Amino acid sequence: MTDNLIRFTRGVPANESFSVELLSSFASEAIKKYSPSVLQYADARGFPPLRELLAKENRVTHERIILGQGSLHLLDIITQIVTKPGDLIFTENPSYDRALTIMKRRGCRLTGIPLEADGLGVNKVEERLKLGDRPKFFYIIPDFQNPSGSVLSMEKRKTVLKLAAKYAFLIIEDSPYYRLRYRGESIPSLFDLAPDRVLHMSSYSKLISPGLRVGYVIAPATMADPIAKWAEDTYINNSYINHAIAFEFQISGSLEKQICFLKELYLPRLDAMLNALDRSLKTCSTWTAPDGGFFIGVTLSRNIKADDLLTQAQKAGLQLTDGRNFFTDGSGDRFVRLPFCALTSAEITEGILRLSKVINQIC
Amino acid sequence: MTDNLIRFTRGVPANESFSVELLSSFASEAIKKYSPSVLQYADARGFPPLRELLAKENRVTHERIILGQGSLHLLDIITQIVTKPGDLIFTENPSYDRALTIMKRRGCRLTGIPLEADGLGVNKVEERLKLGDRPKFFYIIPDFQNPSGSVLSMEKRKTVLKLAAKYAFLIIEDSPYYRLRYRGESIPSLFDLAPDRVLHMSSYSKLISPGLRVGYVIAPATMADPIAKWAEDTYINNSYINHAIAFEFQISGSLEKQICFLKELYLPRLDAMLNALDRSLKTCSTWTAPDGGFFIGVTLSRNIKADDLLTQAQKAGLQLTDGRNFFTDGSGDRFVRLPFCALTSAEITEGILRLSKVINQIC
Repeated sequence: MTDNLIRFTRGVPANESFSVELLSSFASEAIKKYSPSVLQYADARGFPPLRELLAKENRVTHERIILGQGSLHLLDIITQIVTKPGDLIFTENPSYDRALTIMKRRGCRLTGIPLEADGLGVNKVEERLKLGDRPKFFYIIPDFQNPSGSVLSMEKRKTVLKLAAKYAFLIIEDSPYYRLRYRGESIPSLFDLAPDRVLHMSSYSKLISPGLRVGYVIAPATMADPIAKWAEDTYINNSYINHAIAFEFQISGSLEKQICFLKELYLPRLDAMLNALDRSLKTCSTWTAPDGGFFIGVTLSRNIKADDLLTQAQKAGLQLTDGRNFFTDGSGDRFVRLPFCALTSAEITEGILRLSKVINQIC
Repeated sequence: MTDNLIRFTRGVPANESFSVELLSSFASEAIKKYSPSVLQYADARGFPPLRELLAKENRVTHERIILGQGSLHLLDIITQIVTKPGDLIFTENPSYDRALTIMKRRGCRLTGIPLEADGLGVNKVEERLKLGDRPKFFYIIPDFQNPSGSVLSMEKRKTVLKLAAKYAFLIIEDSPYYRLRYRGESIPSLFDLAPDRVLHMSSYSKLISPGLRVGYVIAPATMADPIAKWAEDTYINNSYINHAIAFEFQISGSLEKQICFLKELYLPRLDAMLNALDRSLKTCSTWTAPDGGFFIGVTLSRNIKADDLLTQAQKAGLQLTDGRNFFTDGSGDRFVRLPFCALTSAEITEGILRLSKVINQIC
């Protein structure tokens, strides 16, 4: 079986999830329907009908909605506006590696708040704040966190928002997996609870297609203008063609159907992963079992070097992401992020079997 | 006539130039033909078939071609990679306002080299270099320069390349108008003359549609990797859907037809502008008559304040861009950029009539 590499590196939607025919016809439609405006230079905030739709959904004015070429790029813009090199940022530890790269590239200092089963350790946050830490913002992925899969509990959401108000820091809520809950009940987002203190980011990448490159931020009113100005000064505007495709997809009702379809596609994969972990890794690792999203983060209980793990895994036909990339403090040797959406249940089962063999071999 | 505002502010293609039906059908085709790869996350350099096509056209390896969300964004990335705050950059004076904004935002010092009828003053360049100036790069728009319309002569191209070799600076050649020559013969690009010293940027914005947001850079081999890495760290990848639309447009032969069509559409507008200027502004201003591109830059010979000019023009039903935006040194009060592609010949004639009245009224 080692001749066919299994990739636990790809935190991406399944290729078979894309509605190719629909996207093809919405692309054709959108260009006909909204030309010349989608073909011309345009306002940096993005295609007005999609912004108005998102504004309505989120009960804000459309001025607060800014579309981006994916949400990561918006995070880069926001980081450049809000911080100077040397400024402090709080993140979860572990957190999304690409987000950390952006903050480090800006020259910011990062304090990673350890994750617990119900999300970030709020006591630790308060401790740091009482010691005098004053972050410019706290970057949080509250739902089906990347890379751990954990969900921030309602109680902790309230606590962290209280701390944000008391110590006057912004929260950037990155929430691309919010609607990908495969069972159980959703918890209100941080933005729902405090719409003026939270920059809420999300995208269509995990719901329709990453190839659209359509993400968005709902920014506090005072921040929307500077974000739009920075965007305009950087790239004039994103492609309204792509915005219009996402808009057509949504208003036609296809988005709701697509999300149902994704849930049906991904739930068995999540269960395959949970079952495989239970069977093979229970004695040597811990994890939080999520009810949605793309990832489960496994922490090995034995001492292990990431380099050894990656090398031995590769030899066993298994590609892993370096766990250290997700940590702010150089730890992460024992952390393995396991994405489960873009693999079949059979691949997941086989992959975890390989992983357990590799671990038993090294430790 | 003053109730219908004439906008000399819009340096954009004409709305009536867009091939809506073709773009609509290529968009539909491209998604069907290249899925799932155009719908998935992908390599930051861009859609391989388009990169290979551009590589072949430009006789370089495809590794050197990097597609961007328009070429301006690539300039931002390159500026961040090549310079640190405080570094020196040479530009033409005047130059493209958005490019200047990007360099200033980076904290770079700008030295603007005055333009002459046949392009930048090379003697002035040598003078600055002999005085010890060491720019990180020289940003040049050699063909139908924005905002002046001037073309850098062959002799000067050779001279500036010699200086670049002698004093070891990069040249960034921004060339979106190169193929929009409405009469006369093209001059080889700086890139053609020195493919390893020049970063050549261009885009499909002026040829097909700005709404595609597809630009590209041909970078020296050693710089392509850092540019791609910066791009990946910023936005993962651009939309391959848009890249694939541009690719289909080009390989189908539609690009060549579109360029012929643009020439037929824009030449009469250029001539209308030149005739109107000859009729109305000859006594009080100078300009270089271009054979292509989007702009003519007019310099008034009388003393005038930009604020007065803008205000009075607005009152006379004429919207102008602030000339000072194009200059590195706070001058530009007497400079007026006149775009001619997105206006009808009648609007151009009427607009220049209004402009001459305003000037005579103020001076």
